[in-house]
Amino acid sequence: MKLCPVILCGGAGSRLWPLSRRLYPKQFMDMGGHTLFGDTLKRLGGLPELTPPLVICNREQRFLAAAQMQEQGLEPAGRVILEPEGRNTAPAIAVAAQAALERNRGEDALLLALPSDHVIREVGAFARAVAQAAACAGQGRLVTFGVEPDGPETGYGYIQRGEALSTGFAVRRFVEKPRREAAEAMLAGGGHYWNSGMFLFRASLFLSELRRYAPDMFRAAADAWEERAEEHDFIWLGEAFAACPADSIDYAVMEKTSLAAMVPLDAGWSDLGSWSAVYDAAAKDAAANALVGDVLAENVSGSYLHSSGRLVAALGVRDMVVVETGDAVLVAGKEHSQEVKTLVARLSRQARSEKDTHLRVFRPWGWYETLALGERFQVKRIMVKSGASLSLQLHHQRAEHWVVVSGVGRVTVGDKLLELHADQSTYIPLGVRHRLANAGPLPLEIIEIQSGSYLGEDDIVRFEDTYGRC
Amino acid sequence: MKLCPVILCGGAGSRLWPLSRRLYPKQFMDMGGHTLFGDTLKRLGGLPELTPPLVICNREQRFLAAAQMQEQGLEPAGRVILEPEGRNTAPAIAVAAQAALERNRGEDALLLALPSDHVIREVGAFARAVAQAAACAGQGRLVTFGVEPDGPETGYGYIQRGEALSTGFAVRRFVEKPRREAAEAMLAGGGHYWNSGMFLFRASLFLSELRRYAPDMFRAAADAWEERAEEHDFIWLGEAFAACPADSIDYAVMEKTSLAAMVPLDAGWSDLGSWSAVYDAAAKDAAANALVGDVLAENVSGSYLHSSGRLVAALGVRDMVVVETGDAVLVAGKEHSQEVKTLVARLSRQARSEKDTHLRVFRPWGWYETLALGERFQVKRIMVKSGASLSLQLHHQRAEHWVVVSGVGRVTVGDKLLELHADQSTYIPLGVRHRLANAGPLPLEIIEIQSGSYLGEDDIVRFEDTYGRC
Repeated sequence: MKLCPVILCGGAGSRLWPLSRRLYPKQFMDMGGHTLFGDTLKRLGGLPELTPPLVICNREQRFLAAAQMQEQGLEPAGRVILEPEGRNTAPAIAVAAQAALERNRGEDALLLALPSDHVIREVGAFARAVAQAAACAGQGRLVTFGVEPDGPETGYGYIQRGEALSTGFAVRRFVEKPRREAAEAMLAGGGHYWNSGMFLFRASLFLSELRRYAPDMFRAAADAWEERAEEHDFIWLGEAFAACPADSIDYAVMEKTSLAAMVPLDAGWSDLGSWSAVYDAAAKDAAANALVGDVLAENVSGSYLHSSGRLVAALGVRDMVVVETGDAVLVAGKEHSQEVKTLVARLSRQARSEKDTHLRVFRPWGWYETLALGERFQVKRIMVKSGASLSLQLHHQRAEHWVVVSGVGRVTVGDKLLELHADQSTYIPLGVRHRLANAGPLPLEIIEIQSGSYLGEDDIVRFEDTYGRC
Repeated sequence: MKLCPVILCGGAGSRLWPLSRRLYPKQFMDMGGHTLFGDTLKRLGGLPELTPPLVICNREQRFLAAAQMQEQGLEPAGRVILEPEGRNTAPAIAVAAQAALERNRGEDALLLALPSDHVIREVGAFARAVAQAAACAGQGRLVTFGVEPDGPETGYGYIQRGEALSTGFAVRRFVEKPRREAAEAMLAGGGHYWNSGMFLFRASLFLSELRRYAPDMFRAAADAWEERAEEHDFIWLGEAFAACPADSIDYAVMEKTSLAAMVPLDAGWSDLGSWSAVYDAAAKDAAANALVGDVLAENVSGSYLHSSGRLVAALGVRDMVVVETGDAVLVAGKEHSQEVKTLVARLSRQARSEKDTHLRVFRPWGWYETLALGERFQVKRIMVKSGASLSLQLHHQRAEHWVVVSGVGRVTVGDKLLELHADQSTYIPLGVRHRLANAGPLPLEIIEIQSGSYLGEDDIVRFEDTYGRC
């Protein structure tokens, strides 16, 4: 039976704010030339007999997911399933199971469900564990991967091992995120593992167990799949999905089924679930500091200092997390980094944009970055990929000036068509239809100055769009 | 005898980096609608029988000093003395003494030497102390102001009081910045005061004592005054000043003369000599935090958190100093804030611009701010005061695009003269003479996009300049 990987990309990753944000979350973040989602796809290369992976994410992130799949040489068309809104892992996997069965024309498939935002250092060990789990699942089990704990971590759920099976172990019990003392007891007692959130099982078996233990969820997921639309290379789940109860696969199925099994995973795993986990996974200097970017540290120890651009100068601090971005700076005690979520919740109550978006906003055609926002002007830096073009659009309340910094632009203004090279500029009066395209082989970089009484992103009328955004 | 205030503005204020920098130091910094230099000038209003103040600063800061004097209704012409380079307080006061005597046509004057970057909360108490010091100085004393200590501060020098005079006290001894234990002993023993760095004495008496105890300094200062040039409303000291030994008035004169006296000052004084002193002087909330600007604090206490623009979010920290600026972020333990100097020294060894300049650079005509600097482009926001104009100039290696955001610009490009209003723009090819002026009653704000292979400030040829910078 072939193995069908299912990559779960729905997470918002607010625990790594301000680097990770709703519209550009942890799994898609640039970690220095690579992303966790990209690493997850690459890791599959070590596995035999795979069907191409299915990717499940929310609609806002579809272009990020597609672009990063292409970077890994994977064709996204027909493989990216879009949730109208997040419903946790169980419904997402249920939909993926429907998709896998349909793709195999009713024949069964083994689903390998993987979070998209974890680190696994040893690919060989990972592949061996997957092979064991596949054998175990072949014998009618729902298999979870248990990580050998290296400390009394209170941020993870635990799995207690049961009797040995021909491969892997039965599961005696699942344990909620424990208190410190309980975690230490489990560590001392042995036979307990961290719940990694990775699973392997037959699609048909998962669905039958889901139907037994969570029939509403089974039904809603099946309907959402039935009602799906396939447009612009994406699979858009029906609105029935929004009516689906939200729950994790652990609560909805694994803790209830009698068929749960566990395969140990010892492969340098981390879920990077907090800044202190990022610190633990990072390379450190002699003072046990992990310094990223333009950082100056004087009399500093045990700290994670991350600059995205501006100089970060730290003096006489220990066990700190400092993360600098274009519009927000986090300064936290390392042992408090689990509480970043509460900070983000406060931002959310204040409806602040720093919660969701970065200064740099990714679009299917490239990205833009706000350099300055004033009383009645905004300056943006815009990068258009080779061959890409923005929509044909107009603005009712703002004029725009474009100056080409590098590359070659093909610019439509009203009924004129211009080719603009470096140092050349053009002016788009308000109310005039315009379009920007990259006419060259290199990235097109321009500076846009918007001037007008209202500068909101919503003052846009689209007439044509390559990416189906009209 | 009339009182001639001498305001010492030479300080670089590196201890309040990154807010205070060489080209825009502490005394000129905006403290929320006011500056310490402006406050120092305003404070003089409470004193009787004054001659207009003399201001001594370095050449780079002349426009800042002049602008802030005008804001206080003081005419800077003929009153701002420029040092070719800083030589500490004694030479500066020596030059001021020469200036005061000359202004009084040889008649003697009382000099009131004041640092420009201190806080004094109670103006009445300050005026009373000055009156006492004037009386004491009238009896042939060199008077220093001693601050009643409110703690065993190790950041200040101390003065031990001697026998009482008809007004004030003789000085028994000056004490270097002490160790903690020594400071506690002095506090317990009583009769010890902080050395405030403010002085009052006859100009002639100071000069004769200086001649006796530091003849080289006396000579160099006198020569520098002789060789002065008066141009563009400023007094430019001769290069002889650079040859002058650098020393503080305490070491050079006060600790040697037998005529030292002290008048107590109890007027809510602080030198704001470190971020912890700024914290002490600031208003605090219930958690003993001083929050400035866009700051979010969760489980934070005893901390000074200052945002100049971007969101600063702090979580689970205590007794911290965080100062965010456009290009640098300082994160320091409050008790380490005296060591900021060492950080700045490191930046200086690395020849980093964050040491000297802000993103916003002040010019006699207004200011500019770099919004973005890329491979071969730079975006600047430029504000030109009403009636002001930049120099007539050209650049060999960059073209410039100007877009008017608000106000009315009069723009010279080659031999064309244009008037530009909001939303209008113009292009200046490289090698073409150009000039920007504000033709309206309101500030002129433009966005400038420079494009070219080299974008350094030094690629500029000036032909005419209102401010004598050709």
